[in-house]
Amino acid sequence: MALIVQKYGGTSVGDTEKIRNVARKVARVKDEGNDVVVVLSAMAGETDRLMELAERATDNDPDEREHDALISTGEQVTISLLAMILKKIGYPAKSLLGSQVKIFTDGEHGKARIQKVETDLIKKELKEGKIVVVAGFQGINDKDDITTLGRGGSDTSAVALAAALKADCCEIFTDVDGVYTTDPNIYERARKLTKITYEEMLELASAGAKVLQLRSVELAKLYDVPIHVRSSFNDERGTLVTKEDSDMERELVSGVTCDKDQAKITVIHVPDQPGVAEKIFTPLSERNIIVDMIIQNASIEGYADLTFTVSMKDIAEVKNILDTVAKDINARRVDCDEKISKVSVIGLGMKSHSGVASKMFSALAGEGINIMMISTSEIKISCAIKRKYTELAVRVLHDAFELDKEK
Amino acid sequence: MALIVQKYGGTSVGDTEKIRNVARKVARVKDEGNDVVVVLSAMAGETDRLMELAERATDNDPDEREHDALISTGEQVTISLLAMILKKIGYPAKSLLGSQVKIFTDGEHGKARIQKVETDLIKKELKEGKIVVVAGFQGINDKDDITTLGRGGSDTSAVALAAALKADCCEIFTDVDGVYTTDPNIYERARKLTKITYEEMLELASAGAKVLQLRSVELAKLYDVPIHVRSSFNDERGTLVTKEDSDMERELVSGVTCDKDQAKITVIHVPDQPGVAEKIFTPLSERNIIVDMIIQNASIEGYADLTFTVSMKDIAEVKNILDTVAKDINARRVDCDEKISKVSVIGLGMKSHSGVASKMFSALAGEGINIMMISTSEIKISCAIKRKYTELAVRVLHDAFELDKEK
Repeated sequence: MALIVQKYGGTSVGDTEKIRNVARKVARVKDEGNDVVVVLSAMAGETDRLMELAERATDNDPDEREHDALISTGEQVTISLLAMILKKIGYPAKSLLGSQVKIFTDGEHGKARIQKVETDLIKKELKEGKIVVVAGFQGINDKDDITTLGRGGSDTSAVALAAALKADCCEIFTDVDGVYTTDPNIYERARKLTKITYEEMLELASAGAKVLQLRSVELAKLYDVPIHVRSSFNDERGTLVTKEDSDMERELVSGVTCDKDQAKITVIHVPDQPGVAEKIFTPLSERNIIVDMIIQNASIEGYADLTFTVSMKDIAEVKNILDTVAKDINARRVDCDEKISKVSVIGLGMKSHSGVASKMFSALAGEGINIMMISTSEIKISCAIKRKYTELAVRVLHDAFELDKEK
Repeated sequence: MALIVQKYGGTSVGDTEKIRNVARKVARVKDEGNDVVVVLSAMAGETDRLMELAERATDNDPDEREHDALISTGEQVTISLLAMILKKIGYPAKSLLGSQVKIFTDGEHGKARIQKVETDLIKKELKEGKIVVVAGFQGINDKDDITTLGRGGSDTSAVALAAALKADCCEIFTDVDGVYTTDPNIYERARKLTKITYEEMLELASAGAKVLQLRSVELAKLYDVPIHVRSSFNDERGTLVTKEDSDMERELVSGVTCDKDQAKITVIHVPDQPGVAEKIFTPLSERNIIVDMIIQNASIEGYADLTFTVSMKDIAEVKNILDTVAKDINARRVDCDEKISKVSVIGLGMKSHSGVASKMFSALAGEGINIMMISTSEIKISCAIKRKYTELAVRVLHDAFELDKEK
């Protein structure tokens, strides 16, 4: 007998018929003799609907505390519906809100971080044979206010509960059936991975793959919770996200990702003096603007060009800030290329194998794709390229590393 | 400076624009130097929408605890929206759920009764200058489960809060602008009452007037909370529901009501023996069927006919039960007239004046309306009549007691 935490996303609970389907899946796991804790998101579209109400009510300037109280109702609806369906089909069940479980978070409304999860009540209910259905995405702060964890936060709720309960597995049911070597919509030869390490999953998530919320993977890694990513619409095994084990054949490269939501900023003719980079990046970080790849070319006669990438949504604000900063530091001007993408290859094997970078560069060169910027981590290499080449680059790299073949 | 509890119903908070309107009304009362606690219902139609989800999910057999958790989300939405609008227009405000205030109820899901209201948190927030916005309709039981108070329960929430906080007044804002001598949709000469006693309001509510939930009036009477019933769409004074004061001119008759949702049942040729009435009414009360007027005609040769009225919605079940009972007690048969109405005149003055009944009977007789049954209380006289005469009877009685004239 195992303790399984299952999480179902918004598309899996999109209407009452789909929630009935979830109930049948949950019941089957219970029938197999397991204890089950289920974590749900709101119905697909519901959180957006609630956010629109808040926008309309306040001209898009809602108080954070009240905004959290508002949008947390979506999960309350789905958990009570699932619990009543389970009872109706003969399975004792109980829905619990974040405030009832006591999922304590910090006070950062809209992006709260879980600090502690009480387990007494859940354990008591499980002991009585009940299926426990917990609202994802929500917790309470030390003032008993409702907090929410940010988009995709239900993944994090599920992993945190699995960690606190020392569950045997955390199953994340979603509308895709696992983690792929690349996005199957971009390349039909994409292959579902049976296993992937936390480290690789983290890089995939930060490089644009949207299967799991980044923080949920960090948490799973920290508490060593195995995550099984799988489809809520079939019973196939998905992808196991787990720690690196000794007998695991290290794949040289596990996946290729791309992120089209990138723009490249170049500050031209920057005086090459100490403190200049700080003057450029501090005002950006103060506005919570995430700067990704950063390159400074070699200084010529005391001046250099500084180039970096930002998310497209931040582009107007970045230009605004830099126009002022450029004058301030006597840079010549600010250029912006809004038509770039980032493609990345990720693989734990890079740690111990050389040659991945050169293989990547030559594959891209072979198709005449110019690399505008490069950045690397221990298990990832990213290149900025013209956006129009994105899909071509993904396919070329997928072929070059033979990702369609089971290793 | 006074402490005012205001309650706004579903049509008053039907969309974000209407909630903004509520915010302006609340702000004005605050500007006048008062402390304000606001109680809200869900948006009009929202509770029905949630109930339909539950029906569809469970083939209309939802677990009560989960049903309450589900339908209580409607008020959570409106209170957070109002609180964020108030903050946006410069008024410190805070929304509080039943579980946050700690509105304790018994465990009767769907029709819970309030047992205790904690006031510490609300008083603290008021002291800090905040407008406190509380979810109506909901509380928690001793197991920390969400409970709801039944349809119209937000009225009761507001009165209970006003009682616990010793508020100076409880204002109930609704889509009508007060309590009328009769339904203005039935008779255009209906007049708004400026004042009415709890006792009269109770009789009006139980006789079919739908302005206030019955229990909220009982509670107001018990704790002597003045209720001001008024429109949320204008600033006119409405009707004050209060205790009888010595200088209050007792109106002979305050109002005329009607209830078309009535059916008349007659059990024919019932043996006139002790215990027979019990055999008829016990199985009905066991099914929570409310029996209203009861008449037994004079016994002839050891047999009598027993007649009573029930609500139309119960009619199928009543027939079912009585078919069995009739055989059991050797009654001849059960007749049913599904086309009757009840008209009532209500007035505190009846206590000390005679002649109201005879005036009522002669007014009806004057229009050829036959009285099928009569029942009386200290301050009410009700007659069962053919349903087709309902509106005519209301108008005739309104005229007979000159209710259109201010006394």
